[in-house]
Amino acid sequence: MGQQGDDGSAEAFLRDFAQLSTIGATPRGGVDREAATVRDGMARAWLGGWLASRGFAMRTDAVGNQFGLLDLVPGAPYVLAGSHLDSQPTAGRLDGAYGVVAAAFAAHRVATGVAAGTTRATRNLAVVNWFNEEGSRFGPSMMGSAVFTGRLGLDEALATTDPAGVSVRAALDAIDGRGEQGPLPVAAYAEIHIEQGRELEETGDRIGVVTGTWAARKFRFRVLGEQSHTGSTRMVDRRDALLGASLLVVEARSLADRFADGPLHTAVSQLDVRPNSPVVVASEVRANLDLRSPDPAVLDAAVERVRAVAARVEAEHGVRVELELTHSWDRQDYQDDCVAVSERVCAELGLAARRMLTVAGHDSTNMKDVVPTAMLFVPSREGISHNEREDTAPEDLVAGVDVLTGVVRELVSAPGTPAAWTSPSLG
Amino acid sequence: MGQQGDDGSAEAFLRDFAQLSTIGATPRGGVDREAATVRDGMARAWLGGWLASRGFAMRTDAVGNQFGLLDLVPGAPYVLAGSHLDSQPTAGRLDGAYGVVAAAFAAHRVATGVAAGTTRATRNLAVVNWFNEEGSRFGPSMMGSAVFTGRLGLDEALATTDPAGVSVRAALDAIDGRGEQGPLPVAAYAEIHIEQGRELEETGDRIGVVTGTWAARKFRFRVLGEQSHTGSTRMVDRRDALLGASLLVVEARSLADRFADGPLHTAVSQLDVRPNSPVVVASEVRANLDLRSPDPAVLDAAVERVRAVAARVEAEHGVRVELELTHSWDRQDYQDDCVAVSERVCAELGLAARRMLTVAGHDSTNMKDVVPTAMLFVPSREGISHNEREDTAPEDLVAGVDVLTGVVRELVSAPGTPAAWTSPSLG
Repeated sequence: MGQQGDDGSAEAFLRDFAQLSTIGATPRGGVDREAATVRDGMARAWLGGWLASRGFAMRTDAVGNQFGLLDLVPGAPYVLAGSHLDSQPTAGRLDGAYGVVAAAFAAHRVATGVAAGTTRATRNLAVVNWFNEEGSRFGPSMMGSAVFTGRLGLDEALATTDPAGVSVRAALDAIDGRGEQGPLPVAAYAEIHIEQGRELEETGDRIGVVTGTWAARKFRFRVLGEQSHTGSTRMVDRRDALLGASLLVVEARSLADRFADGPLHTAVSQLDVRPNSPVVVASEVRANLDLRSPDPAVLDAAVERVRAVAARVEAEHGVRVELELTHSWDRQDYQDDCVAVSERVCAELGLAARRMLTVAGHDSTNMKDVVPTAMLFVPSREGISHNEREDTAPEDLVAGVDVLTGVVRELVSAPGTPAAWTSPSLG
Repeated sequence: MGQQGDDGSAEAFLRDFAQLSTIGATPRGGVDREAATVRDGMARAWLGGWLASRGFAMRTDAVGNQFGLLDLVPGAPYVLAGSHLDSQPTAGRLDGAYGVVAAAFAAHRVATGVAAGTTRATRNLAVVNWFNEEGSRFGPSMMGSAVFTGRLGLDEALATTDPAGVSVRAALDAIDGRGEQGPLPVAAYAEIHIEQGRELEETGDRIGVVTGTWAARKFRFRVLGEQSHTGSTRMVDRRDALLGASLLVVEARSLADRFADGPLHTAVSQLDVRPNSPVVVASEVRANLDLRSPDPAVLDAAVERVRAVAARVEAEHGVRVELELTHSWDRQDYQDDCVAVSERVCAELGLAARRMLTVAGHDSTNMKDVVPTAMLFVPSREGISHNEREDTAPEDLVAGVDVLTGVVRELVSAPGTPAAWTSPSLG
């Protein structure tokens, strides 16, 4: 392993992360590195260089997941740590990338400890950059970890196209992003991410230890009306798809406001109007609808209310509303022993930890279904997320790397014969 | 002039119009012939062939207006009749094209009468296909007649680009659509169009004689919010541009409903969301807002109400709303003597005529500002417009051609020295 003077230090972390953030940098301090774009390819190359120069063997699998493998115990399963380098079209520099670089530093520090004889490894080490976590260019989100865990078929993922008609296969090939890494035996997974909320900021706790996920229901909806002239058509004769869609947007918001303590989040954020002409009443609108809550009963009540509103809009405005459930997950827990490890490491470092739920999905939400998974949060300034103004204080970023290092060290040196799960063959 | 057995007859009109309707035909009986597309070029070629074979000299000007000139009286100004062959992306086959072919038949019939000695001409005859009346590909609408009447600069029109970045100049050049026709002296203008409403259908009258236009105010609006995560961001922290825009869409509709007798039409029909991601709360929405009424006082009250709603949305939802007035016209009248000519022709033909206002804009709205202008309507089935299902009964189409023929004949043979307006030089 090549070593520099301050290699693995807090200063090195902040310096190297700042360097990565110049790739796809936007004028307002964020990044634009959508999955399998040229700039995603550049970020992957940066990571490959960083890990390879520290002794990690770089591999990619058939869906573009990028691994840095470090064998410490011949034949043992891997402790995986990572997140994703791809971003929303304009995003903050931390979302995903922080977790990848933190994992690289954590793995490198642990490996350094093993080499120095201060840490005894019982598992191997791997850093992972999951392909296409964001899902903004190619749906669904968390694509790479979904294929890795067998939840999504490889062929289906590769055939997915972006709005310009480019497939995942073609886009990955254009950045040499697909490789031949076969099944990997995995013992455990660890990930750290910015909170994307303001619970830590408000409580003053330094680290979030994620114990479970909110439940979610995601819909695509279509409102079907009929084209007519925006000027001359009498109002009573109009069947305005954009009016119907707007009523659903407004109702989704008022649904959330009705639950005063905030256990329901609702959003419509993607909406396409056809024919989208200044003089033609819309004949069709397609949009998404995202409902999340820690309480499945709240979610079920919200879905019922959405269906009632859709029926009312149909009856009152002569349009048809089609609702299609595209994603549904209930509240799910992370493994207790991983929560315990995370809390123990925080206590040792003197950092106040807080048990939390995650509202957003992460690659760890896929991984926790197959192996013991630790998921950590650092604070987000004002909870700003999916925004170039997203930020976290440097001391919080550094503290997060320290906690992740401790967690990875405990997982790598856990006693006993590890129970390994092996990822499916993508050949 | 080449003549066929039934040339100029009702049967010939229906046959030839059906033939034109095959150009850019859609599976559901409409057409797709946006301005300066290949299929617009094909329709223009069809018209050129039809008119040239009947003795008209084909000319185009620098903004793509297509003229068929027939000189009957050396040096006299022209009576122009026409409409537009371009269409919305998916449109009915009648909007615009009916008026062009009706004008071609009317002019041909009048010319035949002049040749036979039954009509005495004091003016020359011209058929016109105005460029880009629809404005769906290149804004603003009524572009060709706006340049012809000096309301819009040639350079500005030619530099306008479509969403793919293609300019009017380049698109017209790709179909050989720009020519060198210089200033034309014009004595009068006549146009016929489908009603795009159901007033004639409900009253049973056969012909609408347009006496004036509704007033209109058109806005572009922008709602500016801030990107955030659709799942994790707390509802109170969101500044959702799509929610703000949706509230304006809903309010625009309820404004119209408040005026029970329908003197106010409102529409939002074009809306673009940024970044338009399923997981990012919208930071910006751009949309149009179209307000029309025969009563300027109603319009002013509506605009005031819209501004108040925008201010409320800003205050309650943390977004900024920018309203920009892009078009404004007050109620305007067509010339009384042209209304009188139209009513006289209808009476002679035994067709019940009805004085009406036009809500939609037409090329005649530009032309009436420079020369005496007759504007006629035929009924629209169920008032359906800007829709492939747009339709008019064949007997109504034929009756309309007869009325337009009579009006053009009266204008061409009007006694006295005509007062001529001359179009500006586009050189």
